[in-house]
Amino acid sequence: MLFMSKYSIGVDFGTESGRALLVDVATGEELASAVYQYENGVIDEALPAPDDDVALEPDWALQDPFDYIRTLQQTVPAVVRAAPVDPADVIGIGIDFTACTMLPVTAAGQPLCAIPEFRREPHAWVKLWKHHAAQAEADRINAVAEMLGERWLTRYGGKISSEWFFSKSLQILDEAPRVYAAADRLIEAADWVVWRMTGVETRNSCTAGYKAIWSKSEGFPHEEFFAILDPRFARIVDEKMSRSITPLGRCAGRLTAEAASWTGLAPGTAVAVANVDAHVSVPAATVTQPGRMVAVMGTSICHLVLGATAEIVEGMCGVVEDGIVPGLFGYEAGQSGVGDIFAWFVDNAVPPRYYEQAAKQGIDVHAVLEREAARLRPGESGLLALDWWNGNRSILVDVDLTGLLLGATLATRAPHIYRALIEATAFGTRTIVDAFETAGVPIKDIVACGGLPAKNRLLMQIYADVTGKKMSVAASAQTPALGSAIFGAVAAGSENGGYDNVVAAAQRMAQLSDERYVPDPAAHEVYDELYGQYRRLHDYFGRGANDVMKSLKALRATIR
Amino acid sequence: MLFMSKYSIGVDFGTESGRALLVDVATGEELASAVYQYENGVIDEALPAPDDDVALEPDWALQDPFDYIRTLQQTVPAVVRAAPVDPADVIGIGIDFTACTMLPVTAAGQPLCAIPEFRREPHAWVKLWKHHAAQAEADRINAVAEMLGERWLTRYGGKISSEWFFSKSLQILDEAPRVYAAADRLIEAADWVVWRMTGVETRNSCTAGYKAIWSKSEGFPHEEFFAILDPRFARIVDEKMSRSITPLGRCAGRLTAEAASWTGLAPGTAVAVANVDAHVSVPAATVTQPGRMVAVMGTSICHLVLGATAEIVEGMCGVVEDGIVPGLFGYEAGQSGVGDIFAWFVDNAVPPRYYEQAAKQGIDVHAVLEREAARLRPGESGLLALDWWNGNRSILVDVDLTGLLLGATLATRAPHIYRALIEATAFGTRTIVDAFETAGVPIKDIVACGGLPAKNRLLMQIYADVTGKKMSVAASAQTPALGSAIFGAVAAGSENGGYDNVVAAAQRMAQLSDERYVPDPAAHEVYDELYGQYRRLHDYFGRGANDVMKSLKALRATIR
Repeated sequence: MLFMSKYSIGVDFGTESGRALLVDVATGEELASAVYQYENGVIDEALPAPDDDVALEPDWALQDPFDYIRTLQQTVPAVVRAAPVDPADVIGIGIDFTACTMLPVTAAGQPLCAIPEFRREPHAWVKLWKHHAAQAEADRINAVAEMLGERWLTRYGGKISSEWFFSKSLQILDEAPRVYAAADRLIEAADWVVWRMTGVETRNSCTAGYKAIWSKSEGFPHEEFFAILDPRFARIVDEKMSRSITPLGRCAGRLTAEAASWTGLAPGTAVAVANVDAHVSVPAATVTQPGRMVAVMGTSICHLVLGATAEIVEGMCGVVEDGIVPGLFGYEAGQSGVGDIFAWFVDNAVPPRYYEQAAKQGIDVHAVLEREAARLRPGESGLLALDWWNGNRSILVDVDLTGLLLGATLATRAPHIYRALIEATAFGTRTIVDAFETAGVPIKDIVACGGLPAKNRLLMQIYADVTGKKMSVAASAQTPALGSAIFGAVAAGSENGGYDNVVAAAQRMAQLSDERYVPDPAAHEVYDELYGQYRRLHDYFGRGANDVMKSLKALRATIR
Repeated sequence: MLFMSKYSIGVDFGTESGRALLVDVATGEELASAVYQYENGVIDEALPAPDDDVALEPDWALQDPFDYIRTLQQTVPAVVRAAPVDPADVIGIGIDFTACTMLPVTAAGQPLCAIPEFRREPHAWVKLWKHHAAQAEADRINAVAEMLGERWLTRYGGKISSEWFFSKSLQILDEAPRVYAAADRLIEAADWVVWRMTGVETRNSCTAGYKAIWSKSEGFPHEEFFAILDPRFARIVDEKMSRSITPLGRCAGRLTAEAASWTGLAPGTAVAVANVDAHVSVPAATVTQPGRMVAVMGTSICHLVLGATAEIVEGMCGVVEDGIVPGLFGYEAGQSGVGDIFAWFVDNAVPPRYYEQAAKQGIDVHAVLEREAARLRPGESGLLALDWWNGNRSILVDVDLTGLLLGATLATRAPHIYRALIEATAFGTRTIVDAFETAGVPIKDIVACGGLPAKNRLLMQIYADVTGKKMSVAASAQTPALGSAIFGAVAAGSENGGYDNVVAAAQRMAQLSDERYVPDPAAHEVYDELYGQYRRLHDYFGRGANDVMKSLKALRATIR
């Protein structure tokens, strides 16, 4: 009998675009990918035409839900064609999303922004993860939670974010009560897209857990809590959401005829419960068991760890049962600035001669700086930095902290600073690793994925030397989409040529690259000393002994 | 009777060149100036040809004493010609010098380096002020002084420098005892040049006081002190120097026939006792009384204050009776990095777009940054820096401190940092002003001179706003040479058309420019707050609470 290959598709919905990836279910081989740039992108100044006379306030960031549908229409047929494969051999599809990215919809799943009455109302549109205009609501939620001593705060590092579900929902209620009232459902865009694909409304355990204060054992916060925020908000869960949360790895439903026509796939194709882009990368980076940290390294770093037990880890973003791999506790921590600090540095603090070198040698400025910085030994820059250009997520959970560079002399050159910034972000990661280990969540080694590892080998070696952990790199350059394809194969099930669970699927479909970064003992010893100095500055400036960073920000805020 | 103008010449011996200035004695009008670039410049790699196979160790900096004679030969005739004036109407000449810049000579005033036997011996040459190879000797002097509880330490901020006279002399003894033995005299180059001009050996109270631990009331350190350093060093003062110290403002002697032939001036022209470049700027900046600080602002800042009494000011460089103006105590303090920090910044941390703007607008990058930084209000940068790129001179007296920048975010741009660096150096000046006032040495306002004030008006306004003191600017762009001309006119005396004292001379010959920088009360209030934060960081990192700057330097030193 001829062995017939089966395929799975993962669709990764990002901030500016959506990407589909078609994968061989047996091997994880990536056969084709396609990207769709959202027609309306990030909506942060005015609503799309013809309503572009409706201006948005600062810190707003919206999206058009139909950009997600167009992503399905454009990319899925493209990868099937490009591979090429028989659509009938595509056994499952999974999706992942930015989060919390949420929208108000009708009971039928119609986005309110698609209803003429609400089209010109910004609150009727999708609130993108980086919509930061709900800070007042987040502050209120945190204040009330602290006052009531809500235990769930400890699951989220003591503070919930303005980006999260209830902050955004409460902002709708505060500022557009008519939209709030008209919304039959408030839902993550991830779950809404799966709903539109299957006709079945599900709520995935990942976004519910990390973004909507849900836990498998304790459910959502109690009604009294919501009532104190606003009496009209008391029954939000029962009125606008659902208490039925579906663990990751389940099949959400089957492709409807309509969605089949969008995608060119067979009606009835299995659709996985939705996922979050960072979290879905974990199995795609081969990790399905406790003991390894996955670092999704890009402009920022998201650190994901699986644990057998729920522990309180200082300053983590969240711990969610079934949040990453079903049956385990998924821990998330993060550094709010990494690659974007290096990009800031190159754009704002590197003098012309390095640009000239780069142009002459046909490489980019980062590569010139990396090469020069690689010639320095640990400690040779004489510099130490606090990597807080974009605040500190874990473990201090404080957006008002700012960057620090110490040790500059007249002999300091750009590669010294570049290296010190890389080292500072590595110290930031080590701080997080230490917090996990201190809390009893072991971390044996680290698997990196995302854009940074391939770009900067020096950075990877420094991270290994600083953390003292072996660093591996995921083979796939598009782990979120691969992760979604893995969940698609699990949704299909082994009876259809897929897998029964994520562990089995990842074992076959996920690979590590050949790159390994092993800590150099001598470098690690020097970095131990520097890390001690880093932590001392970290605690001095980060834990209230000297609040100068906040004072400067506060002073600056009085000036506008 | 036709009024006949009289003239005075000041010669300023700098690091790379010497400059003569011809001045109208009645008005201070600057009629002509001429510069001579030293033929052998700063000798810091090898001796001049034909002995350029003799390499110098790191941190060495020598000069050729005949470059000073050539300066007289080249520049004085040039200014007399250019003015033009009748040499007979030049009534006096004064000189000022870098210090401590010293050399070993014979009893006849012949430099040892001019004697064939010693020509190839680096220790026989002039040790320039920035010869830093005598650190071990300075350490020994400081350790012994501390052990013996020498009271004179308090006159020098608790520490003497490797640049100073006895450090350099002791290095000669340590490393070249034959040179030490052969030297009949060890002498400041300033005094040596005056000796060569007049045939009379004088020792001026300024270099003796600031660089050779002399005071009018206590003389030099005692013989036992020198003996502990090295028994052969015990009688250095009596064997190689002189206990006869001449106060500033005196006539050292009259131009010899030989020196008259070098300069084209009349034999017998009055020659003033030599001076130091910074100190001689004080009367040239109109200051001859207590209550005003003179800030000589360039790559670094030298702060000079006159006082009626001798007080212990924290971290000052020195307090010397007759050290600046006869009859008063001259206080010196300093910031080791100012203009050179801005130059470092522009060379090493400003991205191409500012260079492109500068090129397009035909101005320099400093001007672009100044313009952009001037648009920011105090506190708007969100940044705070410690201005220690080149260590800290006053008030911490610690070369191992390093620069710090705090408050960086992804929105930080080069003009923000540029402004923060200017502010940091202004906070450094305010720290020094505060130290004077705390010690009971009043400072009513500040007169600036040197290269910086004319270059950067924003900087001047920030200094006024930060210190809360009115800032004036000396009218002359060459205050050291003007100051020397003032002392030349005093050496001539009123009977010859000059003046009887420095106060009278400065009143006529020194002017302020029209520029005035008055503190803005609102800005001063904001800067008060920022200065409080600066001082907190200053004390935390500078006074031992957190020695991370030293640790980083020590770690770095292990790497070479």
